[in-house]
Amino acid sequence: MKLYGYFRSSAAYRVRLALNLKGIAYESVPVNLLAGEQRLSDYAAINPQRLVPALELDGGQVLTQSGAILEYLEQSHPEPALLPSDPLEAAQVRAWCQLIGCDIHPICNLRVLNYLKAELGVDDAGKEAWIRHWIEEGFGVLEQGLSTSPSYRPERLSWLQVYLIPQVFNALRFGVDMNAFPTLQASYEACNRLPEFIAAQPGNQPDSV
Amino acid sequence: MKLYGYFRSSAAYRVRLALNLKGIAYESVPVNLLAGEQRLSDYAAINPQRLVPALELDGGQVLTQSGAILEYLEQSHPEPALLPSDPLEAAQVRAWCQLIGCDIHPICNLRVLNYLKAELGVDDAGKEAWIRHWIEEGFGVLEQGLSTSPSYRPERLSWLQVYLIPQVFNALRFGVDMNAFPTLQASYEACNRLPEFIAAQPGNQPDSV
Repeated sequence: MKLYGYFRSSAAYRVRLALNLKGIAYESVPVNLLAGEQRLSDYAAINPQRLVPALELDGGQVLTQSGAILEYLEQSHPEPALLPSDPLEAAQVRAWCQLIGCDIHPICNLRVLNYLKAELGVDDAGKEAWIRHWIEEGFGVLEQGLSTSPSYRPERLSWLQVYLIPQVFNALRFGVDMNAFPTLQASYEACNRLPEFIAAQPGNQPDSV
Repeated sequence: MKLYGYFRSSAAYRVRLALNLKGIAYESVPVNLLAGEQRLSDYAAINPQRLVPALELDGGQVLTQSGAILEYLEQSHPEPALLPSDPLEAAQVRAWCQLIGCDIHPICNLRVLNYLKAELGVDDAGKEAWIRHWIEEGFGVLEQGLSTSPSYRPERLSWLQVYLIPQVFNALRFGVDMNAFPTLQASYEACNRLPEFIAAQPGNQPDSV
């Protein structure tokens, strides 16, 4: 498999984590988002949405959207499972993931930040306040949910950590005070001691600068 | 089942469609988002994220996040299936759905519009331009994808229509010119002739104003 990604993209980071946790070998193909490589015709032919990640299978088919890629990997490579087998517990994990994957990450994505700057004249400080606002709002709900839910077991790895760890990485980058979110921070620290997570870290990618 | 929703919420509209297409009876519990009812403690006890929809099962468990609810319904009520059985085709449908459910809808959601107004001083015209921008960008990719993909068959109902029809409703409400997206518009018109879609329309909900 070939993974088209960018070292700092949360969505590409999720797919790296799922591939590593399932022990699937892949080739990394960097797409430099800051240089606009995602808008060049070569990449648009791979993913017309001009976003990363895109996962090219050995048969040449290309999958896009990290959530759809994770679902596909769960079907094609079921072991180790990254979702609970109980449907209600799986629904809870998916809901936590979507809190991050729908209600935090896309709102803070590069294309939205570019619009804020170009169309609405928002400066760097305003963009960073925007990012922190959506992360802190979502993390508040997630911290409460994980710290009170009987179905959250920190040692059981699932998509929850696949979504959470990249978002915490992002939060730290933008100065979110993680002391307000001790359960999330503890998960971040514990996961980052595992080889599958270390290998997926942005700083360990070939395009890291 | 009880569905906590709001007549104009795209995410609640998706769940209404899935329930109707699967023939699952449910009770509608309106939550008036414009009046801020989602922020009252009664509703926050049901969904701490203070968003709609939330689906309360007959056993009392509450599911949140429309995408997680749809996955649960697919597992608990597999017939009629709303995803292709082929994993690659299912991945494509999920990717199209996430283009809407991650990259259009949450960016245009009420809480984001409220921030644009309160924190960045964006006026109504600016908010509407924002909404149209994200819809048009996403619809452009989706129109190209559906009109060229061999796996898109308009007559085969799936989550694609469950996500698309509410988003087109929203697009029309904000003045998006649907002539640019003939495949999407054709799907909208065809679906809205079916009883399951008519029953789910915002104008046919108990809280419609």
